[in-house]
Amino acid sequence: MNIAEIAAALGAQVEGDATLVIRRAVHPSEAEGPEDLALAMDKDLLALLPGSRARAAVVAEGAEVPEGLAARIIVKRPRYAMAGLLDLFERPVHAEAGVHPQAYVAPDAEIADGVSIAPFAYVGPRARIGAGVVILPHVTVGADAVIGAGSLLHPGARIGERVVLGERCIIHPNAAVGNDGFSFVTPEPGSVESAKTTGRVVGTNVLIRRVNSIGTVILGDDVEIGAGATIDRGTVTATRIGSGTKIDNLVQIGHNVQIGTNCMLCGHVGVAGSTIIGDRVVLAGKVGVADHVKIGNDAVVAANSGVGTDIPAKEVYMGYPAVPRARAFEQYKGLARLKRLFADVAELKARLRASDAPATPSTDGPGADQPERG
Amino acid sequence: MNIAEIAAALGAQVEGDATLVIRRAVHPSEAEGPEDLALAMDKDLLALLPGSRARAAVVAEGAEVPEGLAARIIVKRPRYAMAGLLDLFERPVHAEAGVHPQAYVAPDAEIADGVSIAPFAYVGPRARIGAGVVILPHVTVGADAVIGAGSLLHPGARIGERVVLGERCIIHPNAAVGNDGFSFVTPEPGSVESAKTTGRVVGTNVLIRRVNSIGTVILGDDVEIGAGATIDRGTVTATRIGSGTKIDNLVQIGHNVQIGTNCMLCGHVGVAGSTIIGDRVVLAGKVGVADHVKIGNDAVVAANSGVGTDIPAKEVYMGYPAVPRARAFEQYKGLARLKRLFADVAELKARLRASDAPATPSTDGPGADQPERG
Amino acid sequence: MNIAEIAAALGAQVEGDATLVIRRAVHPSEAEGPEDLALAMDKDLLALLPGSRARAAVVAEGAEVPEGLAARIIVKRPRYAMAGLLDLFERPVHAEAGVHPQAYVAPDAEIADGVSIAPFAYVGPRARIGAGVVILPHVTVGADAVIGAGSLLHPGARIGERVVLGERCIIHPNAAVGNDGFSFVTPEPGSVESAKTTGRVVGTNVLIRRVNSIGTVILGDDVEIGAGATIDRGTVTATRIGSGTKIDNLVQIGHNVQIGTNCMLCGHVGVAGSTIIGDRVVLAGKVGVADHVKIGNDAVVAANSGVGTDIPAKEVYMGYPAVPRARAFEQYKGLARLKRLFADVAELKARLRASDAPATPSTDGPGADQPERG
Repeated sequence: MNIAEIAAALGAQVEGDATLVIRRAVHPSEAEGPEDLALAMDKDLLALLPGSRARAAVVAEGAEVPEGLAARIIVKRPRYAMAGLLDLFERPVHAEAGVHPQAYVAPDAEIADGVSIAPFAYVGPRARIGAGVVILPHVTVGADAVIGAGSLLHPGARIGERVVLGERCIIHPNAAVGNDGFSFVTPEPGSVESAKTTGRVVGTNVLIRRVNSIGTVILGDDVEIGAGATIDRGTVTATRIGSGTKIDNLVQIGHNVQIGTNCMLCGHVGVAGSTIIGDRVVLAGKVGVADHVKIGNDAVVAANSGVGTDIPAKEVYMGYPAVPRARAFEQYKGLARLKRLFADVAELKARLRASDAPATPSTDGPGADQPERG
Repeated sequence: MNIAEIAAALGAQVEGDATLVIRRAVHPSEAEGPEDLALAMDKDLLALLPGSRARAAVVAEGAEVPEGLAARIIVKRPRYAMAGLLDLFERPVHAEAGVHPQAYVAPDAEIADGVSIAPFAYVGPRARIGAGVVILPHVTVGADAVIGAGSLLHPGARIGERVVLGERCIIHPNAAVGNDGFSFVTPEPGSVESAKTTGRVVGTNVLIRRVNSIGTVILGDDVEIGAGATIDRGTVTATRIGSGTKIDNLVQIGHNVQIGTNCMLCGHVGVAGSTIIGDRVVLAGKVGVADHVKIGNDAVVAANSGVGTDIPAKEVYMGYPAVPRARAFEQYKGLARLKRLFADVAELKARLRASDAPATPSTDGPGADQPERG
Repeated sequence: MNIAEIAAALGAQVEGDATLVIRRAVHPSEAEGPEDLALAMDKDLLALLPGSRARAAVVAEGAEVPEGLAARIIVKRPRYAMAGLLDLFERPVHAEAGVHPQAYVAPDAEIADGVSIAPFAYVGPRARIGAGVVILPHVTVGADAVIGAGSLLHPGARIGERVVLGERCIIHPNAAVGNDGFSFVTPEPGSVESAKTTGRVVGTNVLIRRVNSIGTVILGDDVEIGAGATIDRGTVTATRIGSGTKIDNLVQIGHNVQIGTNCMLCGHVGVAGSTIIGDRVVLAGKVGVADHVKIGNDAVVAANSGVGTDIPAKEVYMGYPAVPRARAFEQYKGLARLKRLFADVAELKARLRASDAPATPSTDGPGADQPERG
C-alpha cells in the first residue's frame, strides 16, 4: 500500500510524497525504516517524530508537525481514523483452513465452507458452524449450538448447548456463554426475602433447592464477548444480547437478561437476573446492576456505580446507590465540605449558648465531636 | 407425563383435563402446540396466555387466569414450584458413557462405574473419580484430586492437585478450584503494613518473596462453583466450602477461607484470605470481604458492599464500609438531604450575623459555599 | 531434612533435638507423627500444640510455647519465615519431562531443553519456549509468543500471539494474556464523550466501529498472573508489566496499560486503558482505576476504591472517588455523625425561631426532615 491508498481509505488528505510504500503502522518510537507509518495523532506522539526512523506519519488536522517527514496523512477525528488504520494494518490471528485432525467434530455436526477448526477444539452433536467461522484451540461448542457465519472463537471459549451466535461475533479467550443461571429457592421465604421486606433476617436458608436452567443464550450479529466474561442462559427462554453490543472482559450477565443493540458494557460489569437494558446503553467499568431493573436507551452509567432502580433513557447516572449525575456530584461536594459544616454548626451552637444563657454551663456534652463507633 | 402426574410431583391442584399429555415446559409466547405447558406464574405471563398455542398452563393460586385453557395447574409458591417443574423438564447436558478415546486418563487414576469422560478431558495421576461423575470436554483434574460421586464438571473447569470435591458438586465452565494463594511477603514490613499502622507508606516493597501454597481445597456435597470463579488453596491446610453452598460466576475466594453450609455468594463477590463465613450466609453481587474477618450465621450483605469488620449472626449489612442496614439507610438519606442542610446552616449564620452584629460586615468569606478541591 | 538444616535455611535458632528428621510441614491439628513439623507461629496455633502429634514446631520469638516438644525452631518475622519454610516443603505440580505425544507443537516452534509440555497443550507456529518451562494441560501458546526460561503455565492459561513472558513467570489457571483491547469508536462523538463534556447524553452510539489491536503484551521476569485474570494487548505497541509484579485472580488490565516493577494488584482489580502505574504500587481488592490515570511509586490504594485521578508517590488513597486516606476517614466519620448534625441544626432553627419571632408561626414546613425522593 502507498500513502495515497491509505489516505483514500481513511478519507484523509496527504501532504508530501503520496507514492511512498508502507508495510506497517507503528508507534513513532518503534519505527524501523521508511516502510513504517508512524501513528502520531496526539501531542506526545508528535514530539517523538524527530527521533523516529519513520518517514511518513498520520497526524491530526491542525497539529504542529515537526519538519523532516517525506509524507503526512492528515485526519480529522483521530480516534475514528485509528479504526480505519487498524483495519488496513490488522494482524489477524493464525488459523489453518479446514478441520485439524486433532480436533473433535461430532459426526452429525454441520460444518459450512471455509471453516477453520484448530487442534483440541470440540464441536458437539448437531452443532451448526457457519461459513468462514474460525474456531481456535481448546474451544468447546456444545450440542445443538449455532455459530453464525464469520464468527471467531478464541482459545478456551465455551459455547453452551443450544446457544445461538449471530454472524461475525467474536468470543474472546475463556469467555463462557450459556452457563446455568444462579437460581435457587427455599421452600418458605428465606433470609433475603425477609431482609428485603422487613430489614431483618427472619427465615433462614436451611433448605436450598436448585432451579434448573432449560433456556439458552441468543446473541445478535457483530456481538463481542470479552475474555473471561460469563453469560448465563435463561431459565425457560433465552438471555438475549442485541446486534452490535460489545461486552468487555470479566463481565457477568445473569439469566434472562435482555440487552439491546450497540450497548457497551465495560470490564467487571455485573448485571443480575431478568434486568432489561435498552439500546446503545453504556455501563462503565465495575458497574453493578440489580435484578429486574430497566435501563432506558442511550443511558450512561459511570464507573463503579451500583444501580438499584430503573434509569430513564438518555440519563447519566453515578454513585452507590446510583443517582442522576448532577445529584451525585452534589453529594460528593457535600461530603468534601462536611468537615467545615460540622465546624460551622459547632460555632453556631457556641454563639447561641453564649447569647441564650450566659450564666449556665452547657449540657451538650462532647458527643457531637465524636464519631459513632463502628 | 400428563397434567395429573406433573401436579402430583409439585403437590399442586389441577383444574380441567388432568389427562392432557405434556412434553415441554415453555414460556407462553414460545408454545408450539397442545403438548407444551405454559409457565405463567406472574401477571405479565398470564397476559400472554390468550395469544399462546399452549392448552395448559401453570398459574399461581388466586391469579385471574384468562379463559380458554384445557387444563391448569395451580401452585402456591411460584418460585418454589418452578424448581419442581424444571426438575421434571430438565434438559441435561450431552454426555456419552465411558472414557472417550480422545480423553487422557493417567494409568493410575481410579475411575468408578458409570463415569463419562469427554474428548480432551485430562485426569491426572492417582486422581479418584466417583461413580456417575460427568467430565465434559477440556476439563483438567489434577494429580491426587478426588471427585465425589455424581459430580458434574463443565468444560474448562480446572480442579487442582489434591483438591477434594464432595458428592453431586457442579463446577461450571472455566471455574478454577485449587489455585495457589496470593501470598507474598517482604523481608521487613512493607508498604501495606506501614500504611495500616501509620497511615503513611514508610517501608517499600523492594523485595517480594513468594509464600508457596502446599494446602488444598475441600468442597462438601452439593456445592456449586460458578463459571469463571476462582477458589485458592490453603497455604498449609485447606480452604473449605461447606455442603450445599452455592457460588456464582466470577467469585474469588482467597486462601484459607472457611465457608459454612448453604451459603449463597453472588456474582463478582470477593473474599480475601483467612476469612471465616458461617452457615446460610448470603453475600449479594460484588460484595468484597476483607481478610481475617468473621461473618456470622444467616447474615446477609447487600450488593456492592465492602465488609471490613466482623458481622454478627442474622444481621443485614450494607454500604462501603458496610454497616447495619438501618444505619446505611440513614446515611443515604443524610446524603440526599445534605444540600438542604448546607442551605439551612448558611441561613442560620446569616440570621445570627444580622442579630449579633448588625453594623459589622461579615468576615466569613465565601468558603462555606465552595467544595474543597480534589 | 533435620531440624538443624531447616533452621539454618531460615536463619533461625533451635531449642531441643536438632537432629530430629522432618518430612512434612503441617498445621498442628493435622500432624500425624514425629516426622511432621507443626507450624505454630501465632497464638491460636500454639494452643493446638498440646493436642498435636507433632514433636517439633516452628514458633515465633518470644512466644509462650507449651511444654512437651522435642524440638522448636524459633523465628523472628513469622510471615517471612513462612516463605522460607514453604520453599523447603513445596509440593510442586506434577509435570512429566518432554513433549507428551498428545500435545500439539507446531513444527516451527522452538523448544529449549528441559521443557515439559502436557497432554492437550497447544504451542503455535514460531513460538519460542525457554529452558525448563512447564506447560500444563489445556494451555494455549499462540503463534510467535515467547515464554521465558523457567516459567510455569497452569491449565487453561491462554498466551496470545506475539506475547512475551520473561523468565520464571507463573500464569495461573485460565488466565488470558494478550486479548484484544476493548476499543470502539463512533464516527461522531458518542454518548460517553458528550456525557463527559456536557453531563448530558447528546450523541448516540448508532454506529460503533471496532479499533483492532495489533500490539502485544510484554511481561518482565518473575511476574505472576492470577487465575482467570485478563491482560489486554496494546493497540499499537505493548501493554507492559514490570518484573516482580504480582497480579491476583480475576484482575482486568486494559490495553496500553504500563505497570512498573514489584507491584501487587489484588483480586478483582480493574485498570482501564492507557493508565500508568509506577513501581511497588499496591492496589487492594476490587480497586478500579480509570483510563489515562497515573499512579506514583509506592502508592497504596485501599480495597473497593475507585480511582479517577492521579495519585502521587507514596500516598495512601481510599474511597469512591478515591481521596487521601485521612480525608476519606474524615468523610466516613462525618457520614456517621450526620444524623446528630441534622438534629443539632433542627434544634438551632427552633431556638432561633423562638427567640426571633415568638408570636409568628414557623413557615419552614416539614421539608428539612424528609429525604429527597430517589
